[in-house]
Amino acid sequence: MTRQPLIQRLCVIGVGLIGGSLARALREKGEVAEVVGAGRGEDNLRVAVRLGVVDRYDTDPARAVAGADVVVVAVPLGAIEPVLRAIVPRLSPDAVVTDVGSAKGSVVADVERIYGHIPPNFVPGHPIAGTEKSGVKASFAALFQRRRVILTPLAETAATAHRLVRKMWELTGAEVVDMGVRHHDAVLAATSHLPHMLAYTLVDTLARLDDRAEIFRYAAGGFRDFTRIASSDPRMWHDICVANREQLLEMIALFSADLSRLAEAIRDDDRAAILATFQRAKRARDNLYLD
Amino acid sequence: MTRQPLIQRLCVIGVGLIGGSLARALREKGEVAEVVGAGRGEDNLRVAVRLGVVDRYDTDPARAVAGADVVVVAVPLGAIEPVLRAIVPRLSPDAVVTDVGSAKGSVVADVERIYGHIPPNFVPGHPIAGTEKSGVKASFAALFQRRRVILTPLAETAATAHRLVRKMWELTGAEVVDMGVRHHDAVLAATSHLPHMLAYTLVDTLARLDDRAEIFRYAAGGFRDFTRIASSDPRMWHDICVANREQLLEMIALFSADLSRLAEAIRDDDRAAILATFQRAKRARDNLYLD
Repeated sequence: MTRQPLIQRLCVIGVGLIGGSLARALREKGEVAEVVGAGRGEDNLRVAVRLGVVDRYDTDPARAVAGADVVVVAVPLGAIEPVLRAIVPRLSPDAVVTDVGSAKGSVVADVERIYGHIPPNFVPGHPIAGTEKSGVKASFAALFQRRRVILTPLAETAATAHRLVRKMWELTGAEVVDMGVRHHDAVLAATSHLPHMLAYTLVDTLARLDDRAEIFRYAAGGFRDFTRIASSDPRMWHDICVANREQLLEMIALFSADLSRLAEAIRDDDRAAILATFQRAKRARDNLYLD
Repeated sequence: MTRQPLIQRLCVIGVGLIGGSLARALREKGEVAEVVGAGRGEDNLRVAVRLGVVDRYDTDPARAVAGADVVVVAVPLGAIEPVLRAIVPRLSPDAVVTDVGSAKGSVVADVERIYGHIPPNFVPGHPIAGTEKSGVKASFAALFQRRRVILTPLAETAATAHRLVRKMWELTGAEVVDMGVRHHDAVLAATSHLPHMLAYTLVDTLARLDDRAEIFRYAAGGFRDFTRIASSDPRMWHDICVANREQLLEMIALFSADLSRLAEAIRDDDRAAILATFQRAKRARDNLYLD
């Protein structure tokens, strides 16, 4: 007697680092019978077939979703709306749709605009995993192990759809947690979107100095780690800025005020304030990670 | 016939990560006959003896430097002046003195204040190496391998003293480069001091949010690397802020203006400007490191 896999036909739209790694993880577990890829870059899709990440592909997402019981929309945030618009008329009636966008408010708004309401089979999701690399070549089955996946189901979301998406992510080794849409966007603005803005800005600030060549020559040690996230995909981060504008601006404002306060303390030679800031931060960081 | 080691008696004042690693590296090469440690923490000095990093120690730096041909002052920047004041009357006439401070202008000013001039046997130095750990237990002989050590010799510096300090650092596997004092402080403000301010401020900003506990729970992936340097020694970074005030404030101002400009672009939905910033930064970062 053969056990049934969780998913008969999985359609992954956007077979990049996230979509590709999800497909790999589910295949490795034998929890998906067939994977259909879709996306705009046919070269990348051919690589996905060659690497065994997908069984076949279609460059047209509307055709790719035919007969799929689960559709994962793993395209950049800015492409989610057009993709959803294209596939909605061709989805199987019971197909469960989820996404992997780094902001959830904008995706929920996209869905509402398209459907005129929140469909019960749509489960907004966000795996908090990734590297600064992109494309299916960068994907690997273990990407989500011991990482968190946040789902932001809505009042309208069907419990069965929610359970299926939860189960799918748990099979990749991730810890799945539920969260409200706004709260997700606030937490991510603080812990991911703001740091990326800082890393991009720092590198850009230095790259525009007159003696940038020499400056970068001495950018050793901590600088390398600190700026690694500035190698992330600019288009993806552009989309995140647009999608999570308000909460991101709020965090940038908080940070800027704190940086100004530190600069003032340095200017005024307020040594107690400088030391207190660093001590507070070190304590918080050390309590967070034990490395 | 036994080859003479480069240094007969090395006195390391401040046997921490840097001082301890230097002593270990020179011992490993057989290039130092005796190492005398000095410092304020007697527990740390006892550990240094037990680990074989130093042969003996004296908690009084003035006694510790007696008969040393090379003295390395590896204490935090704020402690360099009192240490120099204490040891100057007790130095051997030919002793070469160097330091490892992360800012050089303030150290040169300290030296001038103490001597009334720049003594020929003082060679300001700065190994660009380190981890966020402190203390002799964190030291290891390979710390400086393939790292840069910047020396900022002055017009008054004796060529023999300069050569000896250069040779000492080369023996640790470091690449030694010479630089002007002001230029060193500008380069370090950009590539090290500013990033530390950003990391400390970011962690402090988040640590003061109402939902900090939950926020830190989701601080995965890039955040860990990005904030690692916020675990650095607060006292050391306090001293750096005080010592390199002007150049650091200038860099914070440049960065803040660029961050404001990015925030404006996000607020105004100027998508071309957002994308251009990220693309420029990614290009600069990717050209810098090929990881």
